[in-house]
Amino acid sequence: MSTDPAAVASSAPSAPSAGPEPPPGLERDRLARVALCRLAEPGDPRMAGLVAELGAVRVHDHLAGEQDVDGVLKDVASRLRGLDPVRELEQAARLGIRFVVPGDAEWPIQLGDLDRAEPLQQRGGVPLGLWAKGPLRLDTFAESVSVVGSRSSTSYGTDIARDLAAGIANADVGVVSGAAFGIDQAAHRGALAVRGPTAAVLACGVDRAYPKAHKPLLDYIAEVGVVISELAPGCAPMRMRFLSRNRIIAAMSKGTVVVEAAIRSGALNTANWAERLSRPVMGVPGPVTSAPSQGVHQLIRAGSAMLVTSAVEVLEVVGVAGAHLLEDPRADTRPRDRLREREQQVLDAVPAARPAAVDSIARTAGIGLVEVRSVLGRLQQVGLVVSTDTGWVLGEEART
Amino acid sequence: MSTDPAAVASSAPSAPSAGPEPPPGLERDRLARVALCRLAEPGDPRMAGLVAELGAVRVHDHLAGEQDVDGVLKDVASRLRGLDPVRELEQAARLGIRFVVPGDAEWPIQLGDLDRAEPLQQRGGVPLGLWAKGPLRLDTFAESVSVVGSRSSTSYGTDIARDLAAGIANADVGVVSGAAFGIDQAAHRGALAVRGPTAAVLACGVDRAYPKAHKPLLDYIAEVGVVISELAPGCAPMRMRFLSRNRIIAAMSKGTVVVEAAIRSGALNTANWAERLSRPVMGVPGPVTSAPSQGVHQLIRAGSAMLVTSAVEVLEVVGVAGAHLLEDPRADTRPRDRLREREQQVLDAVPAARPAAVDSIARTAGIGLVEVRSVLGRLQQVGLVVSTDTGWVLGEEART
Repeated sequence: MSTDPAAVASSAPSAPSAGPEPPPGLERDRLARVALCRLAEPGDPRMAGLVAELGAVRVHDHLAGEQDVDGVLKDVASRLRGLDPVRELEQAARLGIRFVVPGDAEWPIQLGDLDRAEPLQQRGGVPLGLWAKGPLRLDTFAESVSVVGSRSSTSYGTDIARDLAAGIANADVGVVSGAAFGIDQAAHRGALAVRGPTAAVLACGVDRAYPKAHKPLLDYIAEVGVVISELAPGCAPMRMRFLSRNRIIAAMSKGTVVVEAAIRSGALNTANWAERLSRPVMGVPGPVTSAPSQGVHQLIRAGSAMLVTSAVEVLEVVGVAGAHLLEDPRADTRPRDRLREREQQVLDAVPAARPAAVDSIARTAGIGLVEVRSVLGRLQQVGLVVSTDTGWVLGEEART
Repeated sequence: MSTDPAAVASSAPSAPSAGPEPPPGLERDRLARVALCRLAEPGDPRMAGLVAELGAVRVHDHLAGEQDVDGVLKDVASRLRGLDPVRELEQAARLGIRFVVPGDAEWPIQLGDLDRAEPLQQRGGVPLGLWAKGPLRLDTFAESVSVVGSRSSTSYGTDIARDLAAGIANADVGVVSGAAFGIDQAAHRGALAVRGPTAAVLACGVDRAYPKAHKPLLDYIAEVGVVISELAPGCAPMRMRFLSRNRIIAAMSKGTVVVEAAIRSGALNTANWAERLSRPVMGVPGPVTSAPSQGVHQLIRAGSAMLVTSAVEVLEVVGVAGAHLLEDPRADTRPRDRLREREQQVLDAVPAARPAAVDSIARTAGIGLVEVRSVLGRLQQVGLVVSTDTGWVLGEEART
């Protein structure tokens, strides 16, 4: 995890990365992005496309200069001229909020993949910048996993999300989620419980708490992790903003785990984005009788998600640290596993129900009486067979 | 289901198929098979191979004539000559038991696939014949599904197995299982509950009850379904016989569903046989915290089993009757699904938390005030938005 508390403490929140001052060009670009961020809805693929093609400064200057045929400033131009990005950055800094843009040392370069992904529900593109609050650098999440799911989760689901996130964060791999009720909050809490890295990506300004009940959780994440949004401080959560936000959750991490999701859950939108970005989607199964597991089972059945049951399996799929810990679950070694061939043959000839005499067992096994008798003695010592008045029968050890 | 109660009632149990008397050749073959059945352990691939190559009569006559250099009958030969297959068949018939062999009208020809499958744990091959007790003809199970699983099942597992089997049998598709504790018995009971076809394949003679506690269940299956074994009446259950039995369960049906199976469950042996026979293996997921679901999750993760959650999904996989009933589970249609584009745009601009005034919503949506006001009214009627003292906010309907 690349926290750098010293850098965070010594530099202004608007320039959180350690190292020399950014070049003046980057600062002009940052100011242009602050302004454009106010102009367009986040995740508007047209704006993202223009900026990717021409650069933020040129797009900004072009729009700010637009006049109609009578020489009057167009609506967009006058709105842009009314903005004061420098003041916005200063105000944000006073709240401990920084604006991270491509080119900054901490910029999560994995978001660049959004440039090549097809829009989904008219949302898409690389965010113009990310408002961030909290000591963790955004590039911490180059190695991270998103854990998302239903807001109406069951206690099974929240338990699993918490344990999974704890296991992931314990391997020093970031846990990204959306701070919503249910699975999201459980994922953050699981990571926090092991003092691991976690990022909450919001559909509103990072100075706001949504849902309101999660204000203490979000305050805590801003204290030890990081709260992120492509929306400027003060912006309200709106339905479409959740869809835009989901693409950032998916793009930020190396893979997305869906813990519980009903057939229509928003978590499936995040999974959809992960698939679109060619990042692995994983699903945790649950009882088939549980509605919040239906969406997950459908993802697995459709081949869109891989079934996972533990943090080590998740880490193996995304191919990050901790994967070496993975071992297939297996039962303890039992006496039966250590049998020699002769012993196995005799054991196979011992009845499960009505006891059989030694000579009958010998006949079935096709082995001599004397040898069978001695083998039965050894099998008896490890509980595989039991001697009764009327002969030999399988023991408890052999029945499972 | 091809029950033929008339045929069963009118003919001797040793010749249950309707129609003319079998040719004398088939009867000689049947008697040879009864004898060979007593000589070798069931599922001995060498005996099955010899019979497949030379025919039962030639193998029998050859073995029965074998003498050592001094002209004394060999052990095998004297054992064969001591047998009385005609009497065995008569005794079985008195118990309502018939011996079905290849060539009989009711012979389940799908077992022929065992001829081409590699042995597993030294077991394999087409059974020499099947002892059967019960009114259902064995060819009833040409369209059938095996439902197997852990003996130490949870109540979740037994509920699912019962419901799944009931759904399968309700489509008039047979349910094959092993009559064991746990999942097996639940599968039989589910089929019986809907008066559907079910077959119990045993690892002992069909005149015996194993486990003993299932005597009433097995008696009932023998009354309305069929109890099957490749072991002659009187034979005791032994460990290796369960392994041989599992291959018949897998080969009898078009696919095998594993409901719960711990990492070392015998049900995985049946799944293994199904895979070896190129029959689909299906697994019902469960809580990842449940040990009896671990084996199933592993099968799905390894790509050996397909995740299924209902009887219709199972029927779809095996491609039999009832598959047309399949429809992806989906949530009820909600008001949100019926929105026109304008309504969607306005809804997307309504905040989720702090209410917004109409002019702010209009600005965000980029739509005129008058139109926004009228659209908000319509959205309010279906509960998608709510009007408060300080403006509009998302309603309950829009939050899920």
